[in-house]
Amino acid sequence: HISKLPHVGTTIFTVMGALAKTHQAINLSQGFPDFKMDAKLIDLVTKAMQNGHNQYAPMQGSINLRKAIAKKFNLLYKTSYHPESEITITTGATEAIFSIISAFVKPKDEVIVFRPAYDCYEPAIALNGGKTISIEQKSPNFKVDWDEVKSKINRRTKMMIINSPQNPIGTVFSETDMLKLQELTKNTNIIILSDEVYEHIVFDGETHQSACLFPDLKSRSFVVASFGKTFHNTGWRIGYCCAPKPLMSEFRKVHQFNVFCVNHPMQKALADYLENENHYLELSAFYQQKRDLFLSLITDSQFTFSPSKGTYFQVLDYSEITDENDVDFAKRLTVENKLASIPISVFYENNVDSKVLRFCFAKKDETLKRAADILNNL
Amino acid sequence: HISKLPHVGTTIFTVMGALAKTHQAINLSQGFPDFKMDAKLIDLVTKAMQNGHNQYAPMQGSINLRKAIAKKFNLLYKTSYHPESEITITTGATEAIFSIISAFVKPKDEVIVFRPAYDCYEPAIALNGGKTISIEQKSPNFKVDWDEVKSKINRRTKMMIINSPQNPIGTVFSETDMLKLQELTKNTNIIILSDEVYEHIVFDGETHQSACLFPDLKSRSFVVASFGKTFHNTGWRIGYCCAPKPLMSEFRKVHQFNVFCVNHPMQKALADYLENENHYLELSAFYQQKRDLFLSLITDSQFTFSPSKGTYFQVLDYSEITDENDVDFAKRLTVENKLASIPISVFYENNVDSKVLRFCFAKKDETLKRAADILNNL
Ligand SMILES: CSCCC(=O)C(=O)O
Ligand SMILES: CSCCC(=O)C(=O)O
Repeated sequence: HISKLPHVGTTIFTVMGALAKTHQAINLSQGFPDFKMDAKLIDLVTKAMQNGHNQYAPMQGSINLRKAIAKKFNLLYKTSYHPESEITITTGATEAIFSIISAFVKPKDEVIVFRPAYDCYEPAIALNGGKTISIEQKSPNFKVDWDEVKSKINRRTKMMIINSPQNPIGTVFSETDMLKLQELTKNTNIIILSDEVYEHIVFDGETHQSACLFPDLKSRSFVVASFGKTFHNTGWRIGYCCAPKPLMSEFRKVHQFNVFCVNHPMQKALADYLENENHYLELSAFYQQKRDLFLSLITDSQFTFSPSKGTYFQVLDYSEITDENDVDFAKRLTVENKLASIPISVFYENNVDSKVLRFCFAKKDETLKRAADILNNL
Repeated sequence: HISKLPHVGTTIFTVMGALAKTHQAINLSQGFPDFKMDAKLIDLVTKAMQNGHNQYAPMQGSINLRKAIAKKFNLLYKTSYHPESEITITTGATEAIFSIISAFVKPKDEVIVFRPAYDCYEPAIALNGGKTISIEQKSPNFKVDWDEVKSKINRRTKMMIINSPQNPIGTVFSETDMLKLQELTKNTNIIILSDEVYEHIVFDGETHQSACLFPDLKSRSFVVASFGKTFHNTGWRIGYCCAPKPLMSEFRKVHQFNVFCVNHPMQKALADYLENENHYLELSAFYQQKRDLFLSLITDSQFTFSPSKGTYFQVLDYSEITDENDVDFAKRLTVENKLASIPISVFYENNVDSKVLRFCFAKKDETLKRAADILNNL
């Protein structure tokens, strides 16, 4: 059989995670917390299972969870999505992204992607016969050149994928960036896929610039979000997306036949959990303390960096240490020094060798200290 | 935007489920149990969450669960799949089916489907630019005409999808059917997608004819299976698929970017649950009692039927009651008589009006009795 994805291997997260395990390395590669989630939320899942919420959930998601999400948009972004027709619960943000791309991208369509980009976008575009058009953001400041973006928009441009706060580099789009994006796509049919899974993790007093804050932009956008990154349970696979009804209707045609619906007891538990509290409001402060600790511990190392502005990732430039490319260096660091990270070249179109590694700081203080010790001795 | 699936509406299961709810009808439409699942399995999930299994699982699935599945294939089908490279845990069987089709079907490819067919196959084929070639199975005996199948195989045939025991009609493929299928596809590259989610629900002493029992067939087959249908927890969304390594490698390229991985605490719990027991061995007897009870209660009704041979569905012919088409009749039965079922015409290519409704008997005896009362009074 001729592969539909001949250029695709195993995702870097699986590769580095497995290497970390084999070599018993401290694992700052894949993004997930090594500390405990809230026991209250666990108890609510147990209750949901015991009360019999073990059969199919509605295809669109449990209505109470969708209502809780609508409330969040009202509270945080002063905007509304209709729970019935504009919000769908998904199998993590990943399924949302895959189903959005599958629902709209046709052979020969172009999709603009800002690189370095999370690695699930391009294969989903390719699988649907689309072409990824890359806008490259370069180390050290990773700024977007909006004139370049403008020059790459044409009548084949079906979609643009943005991701602020941006994985893997920890940058955020400013209001100016978003207004630029809105202006460039005004009066077009270009769909904006706004991957906002780190919306609650922004630092130094910055505000998250959700696509839903800009009415014209909102009218052509999918906003994709995640519970796993917010409630420290990435393994539960629950996310959601919001969009105006005409876009959402097409999305659901795919979602319903891709996964049909999402884990029911866990949806019930999340809906109950969100009823009285807004647990995500302290998340930025929580992770800023982690970032600050980590960076304060490595100021005397040979790495250079500017502090992450959002996400739970910090990129470090190692060009003062070695000439090795980042994949080799990341592997050697894992095997020899017992510290796993993610090389960021794999998130570029042409494996740009930026001499930068990504470290996840969603870890216990003690883990960060042990990691810093290793980095300081390089 | 031009829809990629202009012919697709909301799945019939969502439509009838919502109608049942609105009219407080007994719901024998969508296939799910109305009785409790095993509390032991629930406790194991609680334990898994409390013990911290809340982060991403491996992309291929938890290795212990894959090993338990390999053991099942050894025990039941005397065949082996390698847990490392030939088994992947999926977000229900639905995601397995969607990802298999997405991984292999290209524009202009043909996929042979036996109708009436579960409604997720065709949209997934269409989304990938493929063409569904239908083999029609007609009421009352729903036999497959293998000469017709032969006549529809050509060099564009990329895949065949079989589903024994077959939803919605409750028929099973015999050993002769499977040998015929093996013969017709010998020396071809045609991929067999064998949807075996009802493998443990076969009646009257018949044996399930898994595609993995036929070595030549196995070499080009994906076997797709489900935990939800076996352990009465359809809302947990955990299934799996097995295939020879070269096929599985292509599958995982899509799976990893579609959902990345599957709910971790529930995988852990299932692996623990399967460690000491083979809980699925009594399932056929359990559901045969349900089928027999249901049918014994409606022998004097105006419906005609032959007993289901597998699945937890029974089709009933209502042509002696009314001339209405099955969609209208199913809706009227729900609204006026408070009993929801599934019209099977929607599972055919051209909405063949077969005057047949499908009833799910995965219900408490008491529910089946109340439903039979309604059917007897029509
Ligand atoms: C779905 S695996 C990757 C997890 C993650 O968000 C990351 O590490 O970038
Ligand atoms: C995924 S919804 C359908 C459930 C089912 O298997 C059926 O009712 O046929």
